Amino acid sequence: MRIVLDTMGGDQAPQAQIKGAVQAARAYGCTVILVGPQDRIAAELARYDTTGLDLPIVDAPDSIGMEEHPAQAVRRKLASSHVVGLRLVRDGQADAFVSAGHSGATMAGALFVLGRLSNIDRPALAGFFPTLDKPVLVLDMGATTDCKPEYLLQFAQIGSVYAERAMGVRNPRIALLSNGEEANKGNKLVQEAHALLRESTLNFVGNAEPKDLLINKTCDVLVTDGFSGNLILKMGEAVVSFGARKIRNEFRRRLVLRVLLCLSPTLALAFLPGRGRWRGPVGALFGGLGLVAATLVPLLRVQHEIDYRAYGGVPLLGVKGVTIITHGKADAYTIQNAIRQADEVARAGIIAGMAAALEPASVNDTTNHRGLA
Amino acid sequence: MRIVLDTMGGDQAPQAQIKGAVQAARAYGCTVILVGPQDRIAAELARYDTTGLDLPIVDAPDSIGMEEHPAQAVRRKLASSHVVGLRLVRDGQADAFVSAGHSGATMAGALFVLGRLSNIDRPALAGFFPTLDKPVLVLDMGATTDCKPEYLLQFAQIGSVYAERAMGVRNPRIALLSNGEEANKGNKLVQEAHALLRESTLNFVGNAEPKDLLINKTCDVLVTDGFSGNLILKMGEAVVSFGARKIRNEFRRRLVLRVLLCLSPTLALAFLPGRGRWRGPVGALFGGLGLVAATLVPLLRVQHEIDYRAYGGVPLLGVKGVTIITHGKADAYTIQNAIRQADEVARAGIIAGMAAALEPASVNDTTNHRGLA
Repeated sequence: MRIVLDTMGGDQAPQAQIKGAVQAARAYGCTVILVGPQDRIAAELARYDTTGLDLPIVDAPDSIGMEEHPAQAVRRKLASSHVVGLRLVRDGQADAFVSAGHSGATMAGALFVLGRLSNIDRPALAGFFPTLDKPVLVLDMGATTDCKPEYLLQFAQIGSVYAERAMGVRNPRIALLSNGEEANKGNKLVQEAHALLRESTLNFVGNAEPKDLLINKTCDVLVTDGFSGNLILKMGEAVVSFGARKIRNEFRRRLVLRVLLCLSPTLALAFLPGRGRWRGPVGALFGGLGLVAATLVPLLRVQHEIDYRAYGGVPLLGVKGVTIITHGKADAYTIQNAIRQADEVARAGIIAGMAAALEPASVNDTTNHRGLA
Repeated sequence: MRIVLDTMGGDQAPQAQIKGAVQAARAYGCTVILVGPQDRIAAELARYDTTGLDLPIVDAPDSIGMEEHPAQAVRRKLASSHVVGLRLVRDGQADAFVSAGHSGATMAGALFVLGRLSNIDRPALAGFFPTLDKPVLVLDMGATTDCKPEYLLQFAQIGSVYAERAMGVRNPRIALLSNGEEANKGNKLVQEAHALLRESTLNFVGNAEPKDLLINKTCDVLVTDGFSGNLILKMGEAVVSFGARKIRNEFRRRLVLRVLLCLSPTLALAFLPGRGRWRGPVGALFGGLGLVAATLVPLLRVQHEIDYRAYGGVPLLGVKGVTIITHGKADAYTIQNAIRQADEVARAGIIAGMAAALEPASVNDTTNHRGLA
């Protein structure tokens, strides 16, 4: 597969981008097309041994900054890495586009250059939420904040294809995010989308609350509007950060007093008369170190697992081409992973699958439904 | 103050209710009017020494079950503890109503019996979110899932009065829940409500994301529609529960191997030749116990603090009377706290304050705004 990488997007661009591209080309044998200012890329690339790797450079002298208006920028800056890169996908010269840059510009560029799939009204960002089991695909995570019930049905259709082809889930279970499991729970949008999903040919399992997503794992794909999807993502991040700070603050309270209290029995032991005094404190040290290790190892494992997943690339679904958006803080390892993901998704043939799932026959019965308005 | 307590609502009713009422009457010197089946209450009350306490019983032979349709039940069951209790507030024979029962029935009953304040279109449930500083009042937590921008303005007006009078916050900072701080972020409802709030006389500080609520503490009152408010509450609970389970599962992995590894240096110490062998293991034990104590104390403090706040009663705002909804799992201590809260809120004169804040003069300029539809 031929993956286009936007080398100018992200906090560590282009260093992390080029390093990640070299690693990915070596590890997965794919072609990585490096888009950006030719000279800078060539200079950076010269630092690596690229013998036998396919890393063509396509010049794109311009780039889109974080402060620019996405839709205006992609229409005006035709020589930007976003537009040049996406055009390669549109023209069949590449199979997927990866960017760690301005995510709004990537979305706007994908809509402007690649265009929407037929029978898709709005695109959706699909994110992966860690659960007690496998990650769940949640869409939309923020591409379309105001949704009509039909959009949610379309998100379910494309999410189902993505889960089946790119994640290997057979007959994916689709749920609708709500604040209660019963069909009559939720706002008007949720209630109307629930009816559409129940009538569809999808494997719809009903409404899911946040606890069903993270803990009970009642679904493989969770559908929601972009506002709610973005809100639960940000709430999740905020609660984790809040918990960590709250615990840290509490540990710092009367720290000296607590340490002295904890050390007192050990110190007493050291001053007891008799032979082998050193054994007491050494034992305390070993006991303490052992306990710290036994505590830290599982905690670090949990942190690693949640971090790793959060750093996976996020596909933009509903456009005519594979587009993966990675985190602005992406390092070389994240870029490498995003390229691997793009490679896998491009191989899975999701675009053809989605086009088939969105055939008029399967959405015809929804045309007489109204949105919120 | 005279607080009406629904003795038939909640998992531990009426035992926890009666015990909490006795404790509250003794601790705060308030009158607690016990509403429910007279004989059961009298029998339960006979178990306590109530000398000098004011605990009148008002008979309400009927009660509303969790499976009943709230609005229909309150209209039909006029002898239920909900309806009888709320009528006492309406008729001026009591100052507040507290229930741990069917919260839908309490809301429906409050609307049916007490009625809405003038210039309030919909009621709001106001919850308290723990933060790194003082709790933040969030409304609506689920009473009104589909909101128009004007409702959010009204929630801000009554929330501001509640924070000022019942929580003692001077000139409360009002924020609007969104998925981004900028004024153009959020869905259409948020954007329109943002404009209304900016034009109002309230101390509006702009949009707030979940991290602003929990960590940065940029506001005292956070306004949102009932669907989003309920969603972030449930997401918060789910993430805490998910984190706890994830860590527990990780601790259980290869438990025997890890324990043996941690104990090995200590055991080695015990088998070293020489005098005072016992000191090594005893030191290890002391060191380990000290460390466990030093770790557990702050964690338990955090747990207690979050739990305690979550168990505070939740006021229903926008109706003509003080109504406090407590958790269905409420024990006597929670009931006692809810009665204290009702007593404080009734004293604070929030109903008069809200009526004044909602005077036509302060909302007149909003009548030409449209809702979502």
